Amino acid sequence: MNLLVVGSVGLDTVKTPFGAVKEALGGSATYFAYAASFFAPVRLVGVVGEDFPQEHLTLLRQRGVHLDGLEVAPGRTFRWQGSYEYDLNEAHTLATELNVFETFQPKIPTAYQASEFVFLANINPELQLEVLTQVKAPRLIACDTMNLWIRTKREPLLALLKQVHIFILNDGEARQLTQQSSLIKAGRLLLQWGPRVVVIKKGEHGVLLFTQQDFFAAPAFPLEEVYDPTGAGDCFAGGFFGSLARHHHDQPLTTAALRQAVIFGSVLASFNVERFSLERLTSLTLDEIQTRYRQFSDITHFSPV
Amino acid sequence: MNLLVVGSVGLDTVKTPFGAVKEALGGSATYFAYAASFFAPVRLVGVVGEDFPQEHLTLLRQRGVHLDGLEVAPGRTFRWQGSYEYDLNEAHTLATELNVFETFQPKIPTAYQASEFVFLANINPELQLEVLTQVKAPRLIACDTMNLWIRTKREPLLALLKQVHIFILNDGEARQLTQQSSLIKAGRLLLQWGPRVVVIKKGEHGVLLFTQQDFFAAPAFPLEEVYDPTGAGDCFAGGFFGSLARHHHDQPLTTAALRQAVIFGSVLASFNVERFSLERLTSLTLDEIQTRYRQFSDITHFSPV
Repeated sequence: MNLLVVGSVGLDTVKTPFGAVKEALGGSATYFAYAASFFAPVRLVGVVGEDFPQEHLTLLRQRGVHLDGLEVAPGRTFRWQGSYEYDLNEAHTLATELNVFETFQPKIPTAYQASEFVFLANINPELQLEVLTQVKAPRLIACDTMNLWIRTKREPLLALLKQVHIFILNDGEARQLTQQSSLIKAGRLLLQWGPRVVVIKKGEHGVLLFTQQDFFAAPAFPLEEVYDPTGAGDCFAGGFFGSLARHHHDQPLTTAALRQAVIFGSVLASFNVERFSLERLTSLTLDEIQTRYRQFSDITHFSPV
Repeated sequence: MNLLVVGSVGLDTVKTPFGAVKEALGGSATYFAYAASFFAPVRLVGVVGEDFPQEHLTLLRQRGVHLDGLEVAPGRTFRWQGSYEYDLNEAHTLATELNVFETFQPKIPTAYQASEFVFLANINPELQLEVLTQVKAPRLIACDTMNLWIRTKREPLLALLKQVHIFILNDGEARQLTQQSSLIKAGRLLLQWGPRVVVIKKGEHGVLLFTQQDFFAAPAFPLEEVYDPTGAGDCFAGGFFGSLARHHHDQPLTTAALRQAVIFGSVLASFNVERFSLERLTSLTLDEIQTRYRQFSDITHFSPV
């Protein structure tokens, strides 16, 4: 099984009510790859600048993330600076320096072009489409997006949705894209636009999964403190798609596997927000993941009537 | 088993994106009583004016709601006028006419004073406390509240919480009362203030249940359209407390029974919002309730690892 992710790798400066970090490892592809690496080997395609710290590369390689597709371009690495206040669901962007990311043109190495599982992390949908021209009939394609592209790149985004199997987005994005206030209507509408699976992430309120045959609702793991929500959505996607890839490489894609994947994604996201940047994930074990999976089962179970 | 509810009975004029009703049957005690009546006979204590339509009394009596404690006072019935816009989670109050409700002093009829199960619907906490001086050692006391009392009657509300077993409130109220942004922290904190069960209602995002030993998270039932959210919280409370009363009258109060009660409450709330006022509940059957309970189980289940 082989899983390809294309997206951003960057340095994040983040402030929350619980503390701050400066130029910590971040980026959608980074979080995704790290979370997915617990389930499958990951191939990462992205770009960093010449200033990108070697230690971050080492960290990713140690988790089995292949970096042959990580281009080192002349110039500075992509940087994001943000803060979270009382309401940790909402990030306030203080500064974005695109740097080498501004002219990023994903080039999928030949050895990666036959990847079975492809995740298009949140980048310009025109680039996401461009990636799909470079891969050879993947078994499963999933993508994420963001409010900026919904506003400025609606047409390419809609074209992309016709080509992906799984669309992962958050509640605000789902409402913005479909112009529906009901997330149930939004999810079902998105299914008609191409993807056969739609996953709506609701932060502290959990996740909704839609297919033509199924609807599934999962809560978020009950954490007293969320130290840093940065990357939670990407970790969700990594756990979700990673566990699907592990399952689906030799079995058909079932409703049960999709539901399990939602829980694995939620588990990875819940660990990630316990500390800043990737700090918590770097000490995470498979045992801890499985224990929290079982706790998810405990907190949602009720007896029949 | 006998279940007493004290709260408002009124006439609601409501506008939502899907339509409008004028002077329809409403009030927290009304919705609660109607929803609870599917599980247990209900005794209602409240006040209406001389203009209160006889047909509404007939409707409640037909569902086994005892109205010996419903005072008919000189003057006009309590009226509320509100609207919901795009975001159906938030009611906009356009007008409140307290009328006879302004001087309401709950008087519990002698025959009701030994009620085993007491629900204090959302009224001034000083009056909720006053009710507790009139009842004789109920087995289970639950209460609701609202933002107005949290702001203006904090001390009596905190005194009340020391005397109730179950506290039901919504997410905004939980945050306002505890000054915690995390609902998990808010719920656990409220447990320290008196109640042994705390239930936080999150509208379209479902319900969280907290006890010293347990945490349970339930989604809301996935409805494409919510026609009128008015009374959803009271119907939740009615289904929740009604099903608890039915269970607990001859069995100890278990974690399993509390979780089941959350689902029954969610089922009643989900039916109620499908039409205006009490319209949907008046045609509801026990069969439909049990079917939707099983659907709740279907949409939350996932396989172990």
